[in-house]
Amino acid sequence: MKVGVDYYPEHWDPAMWEQDAQRMQAAGIGIARLAEFAWSRLEPREGEYDFGWLDTAIATLARHGIDIVLGTPTATPPNWLVEKHPDVLPVDSKRQPVYPGVRCHRCYNSPSLRQYSERIIARLTKHYGSHPAVIGWQTDNELAANDCHCEHCTRGFRAWLQKKYGSLENLNREWGTVVWSGEYSSWTQVTTPLGGSPHLNPSFLLDFQRFSSDSVADFNRFQAVLIRANSPGKFVTHNLWGYPVTTDYYDLFDSMDFASVDYYPSTDLANDAKSKVYHGALTHDLTRGLKRKNYWVMEQLSGTPGCWHPMSRTPFPGMIRAHAWQSVSRGADVVVHFRWRTARIGAEQFWHGLLDHHGEPGRRFAEFEQFSRETQKLAPLLEGTTLKNDVAMLFSHEQLNALRIQPQSDGFDYLGNFKQMHAAFVRLGIGTDVINWTEAIDGYKLVVAPSLYLLDDAVAGKLRRYVESGGTLVLTARTGVKNMNNVCWPGRLPNLVGDVTGVQVDEYDPVGRDTQHVVLYGDQQFDCEQWCDILEPLSAETIGTYASEYFSGRAAVTRNRFGKGVSYYLGTVLDNDAYRAFFRRVAEETSIDFVPDLPEGVELSVRSGNGKRLLFVLNLTKESKRTSLHVRGLASALTGGRCDGVIELAPGGVEIFVDEEAHRFQF
Amino acid sequence: MKVGVDYYPEHWDPAMWEQDAQRMQAAGIGIARLAEFAWSRLEPREGEYDFGWLDTAIATLARHGIDIVLGTPTATPPNWLVEKHPDVLPVDSKRQPVYPGVRCHRCYNSPSLRQYSERIIARLTKHYGSHPAVIGWQTDNELAANDCHCEHCTRGFRAWLQKKYGSLENLNREWGTVVWSGEYSSWTQVTTPLGGSPHLNPSFLLDFQRFSSDSVADFNRFQAVLIRANSPGKFVTHNLWGYPVTTDYYDLFDSMDFASVDYYPSTDLANDAKSKVYHGALTHDLTRGLKRKNYWVMEQLSGTPGCWHPMSRTPFPGMIRAHAWQSVSRGADVVVHFRWRTARIGAEQFWHGLLDHHGEPGRRFAEFEQFSRETQKLAPLLEGTTLKNDVAMLFSHEQLNALRIQPQSDGFDYLGNFKQMHAAFVRLGIGTDVINWTEAIDGYKLVVAPSLYLLDDAVAGKLRRYVESGGTLVLTARTGVKNMNNVCWPGRLPNLVGDVTGVQVDEYDPVGRDTQHVVLYGDQQFDCEQWCDILEPLSAETIGTYASEYFSGRAAVTRNRFGKGVSYYLGTVLDNDAYRAFFRRVAEETSIDFVPDLPEGVELSVRSGNGKRLLFVLNLTKESKRTSLHVRGLASALTGGRCDGVIELAPGGVEIFVDEEAHRFQF
Amino acid sequence: MKVGVDYYPEHWDPAMWEQDAQRMQAAGIGIARLAEFAWSRLEPREGEYDFGWLDTAIATLARHGIDIVLGTPTATPPNWLVEKHPDVLPVDSKRQPVYPGVRCHRCYNSPSLRQYSERIIARLTKHYGSHPAVIGWQTDNELAANDCHCEHCTRGFRAWLQKKYGSLENLNREWGTVVWSGEYSSWTQVTTPLGGSPHLNPSFLLDFQRFSSDSVADFNRFQAVLIRANSPGKFVTHNLWGYPVTTDYYDLFDSMDFASVDYYPSTDLANDAKSKVYHGALTHDLTRGLKRKNYWVMEQLSGTPGCWHPMSRTPFPGMIRAHAWQSVSRGADVVVHFRWRTARIGAEQFWHGLLDHHGEPGRRFAEFEQFSRETQKLAPLLEGTTLKNDVAMLFSHEQLNALRIQPQSDGFDYLGNFKQMHAAFVRLGIGTDVINWTEAIDGYKLVVAPSLYLLDDAVAGKLRRYVESGGTLVLTARTGVKNMNNVCWPGRLPNLVGDVTGVQVDEYDPVGRDTQHVVLYGDQQFDCEQWCDILEPLSAETIGTYASEYFSGRAAVTRNRFGKGVSYYLGTVLDNDAYRAFFRRVAEETSIDFVPDLPEGVELSVRSGNGKRLLFVLNLTKESKRTSLHVRGLASALTGGRCDGVIELAPGGVEIFVDEEAHRFQF
Repeated sequence: MKVGVDYYPEHWDPAMWEQDAQRMQAAGIGIARLAEFAWSRLEPREGEYDFGWLDTAIATLARHGIDIVLGTPTATPPNWLVEKHPDVLPVDSKRQPVYPGVRCHRCYNSPSLRQYSERIIARLTKHYGSHPAVIGWQTDNELAANDCHCEHCTRGFRAWLQKKYGSLENLNREWGTVVWSGEYSSWTQVTTPLGGSPHLNPSFLLDFQRFSSDSVADFNRFQAVLIRANSPGKFVTHNLWGYPVTTDYYDLFDSMDFASVDYYPSTDLANDAKSKVYHGALTHDLTRGLKRKNYWVMEQLSGTPGCWHPMSRTPFPGMIRAHAWQSVSRGADVVVHFRWRTARIGAEQFWHGLLDHHGEPGRRFAEFEQFSRETQKLAPLLEGTTLKNDVAMLFSHEQLNALRIQPQSDGFDYLGNFKQMHAAFVRLGIGTDVINWTEAIDGYKLVVAPSLYLLDDAVAGKLRRYVESGGTLVLTARTGVKNMNNVCWPGRLPNLVGDVTGVQVDEYDPVGRDTQHVVLYGDQQFDCEQWCDILEPLSAETIGTYASEYFSGRAAVTRNRFGKGVSYYLGTVLDNDAYRAFFRRVAEETSIDFVPDLPEGVELSVRSGNGKRLLFVLNLTKESKRTSLHVRGLASALTGGRCDGVIELAPGGVEIFVDEEAHRFQF
Repeated sequence: MKVGVDYYPEHWDPAMWEQDAQRMQAAGIGIARLAEFAWSRLEPREGEYDFGWLDTAIATLARHGIDIVLGTPTATPPNWLVEKHPDVLPVDSKRQPVYPGVRCHRCYNSPSLRQYSERIIARLTKHYGSHPAVIGWQTDNELAANDCHCEHCTRGFRAWLQKKYGSLENLNREWGTVVWSGEYSSWTQVTTPLGGSPHLNPSFLLDFQRFSSDSVADFNRFQAVLIRANSPGKFVTHNLWGYPVTTDYYDLFDSMDFASVDYYPSTDLANDAKSKVYHGALTHDLTRGLKRKNYWVMEQLSGTPGCWHPMSRTPFPGMIRAHAWQSVSRGADVVVHFRWRTARIGAEQFWHGLLDHHGEPGRRFAEFEQFSRETQKLAPLLEGTTLKNDVAMLFSHEQLNALRIQPQSDGFDYLGNFKQMHAAFVRLGIGTDVINWTEAIDGYKLVVAPSLYLLDDAVAGKLRRYVESGGTLVLTARTGVKNMNNVCWPGRLPNLVGDVTGVQVDEYDPVGRDTQHVVLYGDQQFDCEQWCDILEPLSAETIGTYASEYFSGRAAVTRNRFGKGVSYYLGTVLDNDAYRAFFRRVAEETSIDFVPDLPEGVELSVRSGNGKRLLFVLNLTKESKRTSLHVRGLASALTGGRCDGVIELAPGGVEIFVDEEAHRFQF
Repeated sequence: MKVGVDYYPEHWDPAMWEQDAQRMQAAGIGIARLAEFAWSRLEPREGEYDFGWLDTAIATLARHGIDIVLGTPTATPPNWLVEKHPDVLPVDSKRQPVYPGVRCHRCYNSPSLRQYSERIIARLTKHYGSHPAVIGWQTDNELAANDCHCEHCTRGFRAWLQKKYGSLENLNREWGTVVWSGEYSSWTQVTTPLGGSPHLNPSFLLDFQRFSSDSVADFNRFQAVLIRANSPGKFVTHNLWGYPVTTDYYDLFDSMDFASVDYYPSTDLANDAKSKVYHGALTHDLTRGLKRKNYWVMEQLSGTPGCWHPMSRTPFPGMIRAHAWQSVSRGADVVVHFRWRTARIGAEQFWHGLLDHHGEPGRRFAEFEQFSRETQKLAPLLEGTTLKNDVAMLFSHEQLNALRIQPQSDGFDYLGNFKQMHAAFVRLGIGTDVINWTEAIDGYKLVVAPSLYLLDDAVAGKLRRYVESGGTLVLTARTGVKNMNNVCWPGRLPNLVGDVTGVQVDEYDPVGRDTQHVVLYGDQQFDCEQWCDILEPLSAETIGTYASEYFSGRAAVTRNRFGKGVSYYLGTVLDNDAYRAFFRRVAEETSIDFVPDLPEGVELSVRSGNGKRLLFVLNLTKESKRTSLHVRGLASALTGGRCDGVIELAPGGVEIFVDEEAHRFQF
């Protein structure tokens, strides 16, 4: 467990480096990430390399005990490269180049980008591959899929399709191009989705998104292979930008040793909508799920972010520390704050670092230092611990993308609905693993799989076996609608999993924002929106019925015993209270520990391992909170005091209780 | 009177066709429209034709007594055509091509489009021109004007202008190009409105819209001529998309035998704004007015529409039937539902047909079947009937386009204002014909002509003669502002019709959304918006005065005896209640039958002919409605029962009363 | 003191000119501006000049005693020029030409534009340079910076940078291009900001805006030099369009003899937000400040403006006159109404003139005539008078542009905040000079300099000396953030003026629209928004403290004695009431005369000179207003009556009191 900072020595007078390093060391900083955007300093002109400044910077930091993570600078092709090889630039859907001058101006399929990236990465990794202070590598920065229409992408997309479909006949059939005479009679007719129309064939659009996602994943893999060849024994990671994105992060991280995330929680605590309150928790759970293990925060919020967009509020007192502890509580083993000192130059002058422009420590730095001291103290306890949860939520970039191509109703939002269900678990104090929908799910007490809109036999079979052998599964509306080519299944919804749910959709009404009512468990009425499946239970029992309009009294939520297990089907999108009531009942039925009355904005998490368990209790709000947990007698890892069962938390308050005997504490 | 479906056999396994045909026949379906988008199947490669599959499909349907309407597939140029002749694509106002991949990617003035369209239409019409099952043809699909700036459109526009204006000197004078030095000194300087700026000369912009509208009308006429040459004795129609559009539909349908409309009423009954409730009625009245006779619905809503945009609500129970009867009540002789079965493939997978993806009949299909059975029963009664109304509303694409180029005030909307006045008639149970503003109007008791902003002597003379010889005319603010070249008349408003109205506009205030007040008939106060003409009555009497601001007490609405008739002038845009009060009074004065207390959302219509009259009473809302009409003793055509004068209508309720003696029933 | 009209004889039949001139003379019109857009009439084809029509028009007007101001027609390059030299057109940030057809379609750096502009201006000025009726010249029309990316602008920008920075090394250092590898290794890599991304380097973006501003100022200067060479002794002015703009108007008017403004006050009096009420006053104060002397209104509102956008309300009765007097009251010596008669043709058909399309005088014309008669009567009194104010507000296009490139917080708006402070002075009846921030400020009792975000030693030194020698200075949050290259200063805010304010910013919170509270002078609580500097007073005293959130009790507003003077620092953006309370207190402390209870919408202004003072009292609202001023016994210049101290003003009411003895009246 270490803390770090992102540092850009090239932005500052070298005369300042020594003092910076001294101060870092004094603040307990053990890691610095360097050089991720420094291509023009490392290779000022084609083929002219200058690593001297970086040698000095690394040496200065290393003298103060700071380990180095080096970034490959490929997110910022320098001006000389763009000038000489304009094919580096992406091309938009009107076939116009996207001009440079800001980072990320590069097409992943550009041969020039590959060639020059290979050269600079090879040089860099050969030079620093065995440097004792360099502990690992970060590829590029916040990789995301381009929507590029250049000739290389056009040819690449064709090749990708040829590999997938074999023949044009198959492509025409699988995409259903017969609609509107879209059939191709020659491969030369197949282009990227020029014009950018959302009206295009949805099978075509989805495959292009997959191709774009594969292109960036391939670019990342190419870097990883090169780095490992020249820097054996050092880790390779990448820092992801938050959700949602069209890039499939599971593919993107396939070639990485562990995941890293750039974590910028909202600073506007007062105005967070209910569904946003727990967005940070989901970001962490998603990140941990990428490799199903602990991860790094490579950029942790240190001040108000602001640049070309207005600055938002500065972090409320206590939140620099509390959000850093939140990262640890959900599985981060290293937290690197972005950035050491706020930049005086460039587009991110107001994306604040730990230090302001003037460089003198202030309130935010003091909070960071407290966190740093505390982590040093707790490092031995944290060592070897991770999260072990009873609940898995299945996340799918495929559904995210397909449901964006064809939004189902006004307000229907895959990620939003996912967040809302995840938030219900956070509110109940139940830890969840968020994993790729294709991952193994054995061993979980409960699996929640929202809107498996695209579905194939492989996943349907996995879910069936899971329930048959005793698992509890929650499925929702818009499951089993399409095959993986974005074409509708011809049977009755939910098609491939109809036997598991024991229910069929008689009719549906895309109610959008026209709020309807539902009664759960016979007596509790709630609101529902977006979508109403009118269900016909076959073997299932009805546990929720509609209470509005022409479908009043029809089944909305069902429960089906299947094999040794149980599957639920939610035919509508519930409100927050309804999800809480529903998942609480499911938790009771599946013997999952929960806290019925956890105050809003208070988050729990448990890290365990090496015979001990650590319970994190965080107050991420601006108000004081009080909660009772069944942890009487446990020691506080921060203060050493014993808990009497009632926990008082100031705004930004953090408590960490140690259960040395590894017995399961009951909330 | 027949019912039909739109059917795409090419989207489905041929093995399904026979069962589909059987089911259609069982459901009473007598017509199927086919092949409208099937170019790539009919001509898979340039010059390679394949009509075999369509022969089979037609034969299968014909065996089950189903007549065929064939569409020309020109809305969907296939990929091979676009690849070989990119001039097929429209060009935008920045001179960039608009890329293909979705329907309607064609410039009507492209020589390649014409050449290849001619070839496929000629082949198709020769092959099927005399086929006994083929009863008629639909040209293209939902034709609409392009805003195309390709070289062919540029040259075509120049030629169009040369023909209209003769010389560049005339063009410069008539357009007033002297403003801002826009004078042309050579025809080569005349282009389409590149850049797309709304700041351009309004005379120029209006002529370009006319040219664009003429281009599509010409493309339609070219098809009609070709079809008639090869398929004599069969009808030619076209299916229009709803209002508003820039294309002049009267021109577009000039070459057609009768009009057809694609009717997709809003499914969101609960949230319809007041002015939208009666939008469907206006669509039908506009369609009937195109050729001033009965028409077809070529696509009738069968389920929630949805595709790249979110699905809206599914049709409320009863509405599949009720809206189909609404079509018949307003003059449709054939109703073709779109579509038989919901597509599994392509961009319209969620634009629902009568059957869902799974193909099993459900609630919506049952409603359709009821309508089908009922129409079969009532066909003899309906035969030879049509609508004969006392009121004409004059609609004008010229005004629609000119008022979009120069919106008069915040919220001023030609079509919206037209709708609002039309809705007042529907609410009063008064049938209206909606006809082209240049049509003959003799014989109507009342003519309403909203905002004849562009006006020439021909129309002004027609209106003058109509009133002189005893007609009652309603004119409104923004009448007589401009000549047909979109240049302001130099006299006092309303210029050419000032003598008819007996009033002149002293001053006007474009009040926009700054609501003002008006008192009608001395004691009823209402709101008004958008525009306030401050009127100076010359020979007219004042029947409405303003009751707000500095023009309080000034004339707002006037009535003028002129010759044997009367003309009204509405100097402002009234609210719904005011229009109802005003038109009720006008109806009384002109002996037009009306229902003072018809519930909102209940629509009346009368079809008559062959010595009988049919009164349709429809409840197009989600609530039950009750109304009293003076129809005691009339028989219900649906149930055979006699009416006792009070009519109870369930949501979606339909009643049809027969007056066999053809005496005029009084409401 | 004269009144005038903008007149376009080329839009009207020459047969109408004589009558127009007679009517103008009868209405007291002494000036007409002509020919500003008439290039295509003056040079119908390349090298073919036709000045005959203009000779006639000028002769006709001159016969009726009307002096002529001639415009150069360069805002409207004719079609033949664009056709022959497409480089006249600007090029957008995607390198696409911006197409013609509307005015302002020209790049100021186009060699063709310069060459052809030079030819037409030379011809025109030689022809009319000594014409006795021509009293002066207006350059172009409402010049504004282009965002042009053509090859000439690209090369021009490079040359501009080479001149400013000398070497690429300096450029890279001063812009901080090292961020994101943006370093240039060759001048050929330096382009305009292609792509138009707001993410680009802010130093780069600001310099490009300066270059664009310099380009238009240079184009204006080029015209002025040419005009003066051929028309010695005649004035040269330019008519500016309203604020805000990116062009630096101080530079633009550097080459002009005096400033002119096009003044179109909002006609929507009822819905004016509080901060907008006094926008007109600010426009006039800004215009007067351009050359620090009296100015012309070259286009004064005469009716509702409308063209491609909807018409707004017509001027409320009285406002044509009242707003014209407002112009005079703030320093206009000539008011030219736009336009004589509303155009029948072209894009501005509904931008109403004094006369409607029909040409008969109406209400608006009558108001104009009253103003015209009154100005003739008062001309001797007004002669030689101007405004002499105690307060200067420092305006800066540099801050405007830099704060747009990087908006500081949600809602933070340099011009809006400036307006709000200016409005507080208007509300208190205190006259303010609004001058360039680099101007000399000696002699003012109070100087207010909002958000000097960019700051250098020159201005900081000027402010320091001003306070040291006894001045009172008000500074605000976001002062001293950056150097002139848009790079952050490394010290503690407010950096260069920290000694003057005696305060330093401990921390800041960009609160945006999250309203906070502040207590001024110990007992008055107000709202504040946008930004909260949490202040650490060093030598300053605290006169305002926050009363919300974690910074409650910390200093928000401070007052510092420095040398013989005082400086205030406002750490937050106050609400209107707070500004009024604050500036009232400052006015008391600095012995500046103010009116504590002036009704909202009533404006005061004083013109003085030649031993007399004229007090203008204007009611620019739709309601009657009453105010008491200490002017008992003064004579009304309009009516001759003596004031008894209470002034009753009808809507649009105007009073002008004469203080012949030039003693200072106390409000």
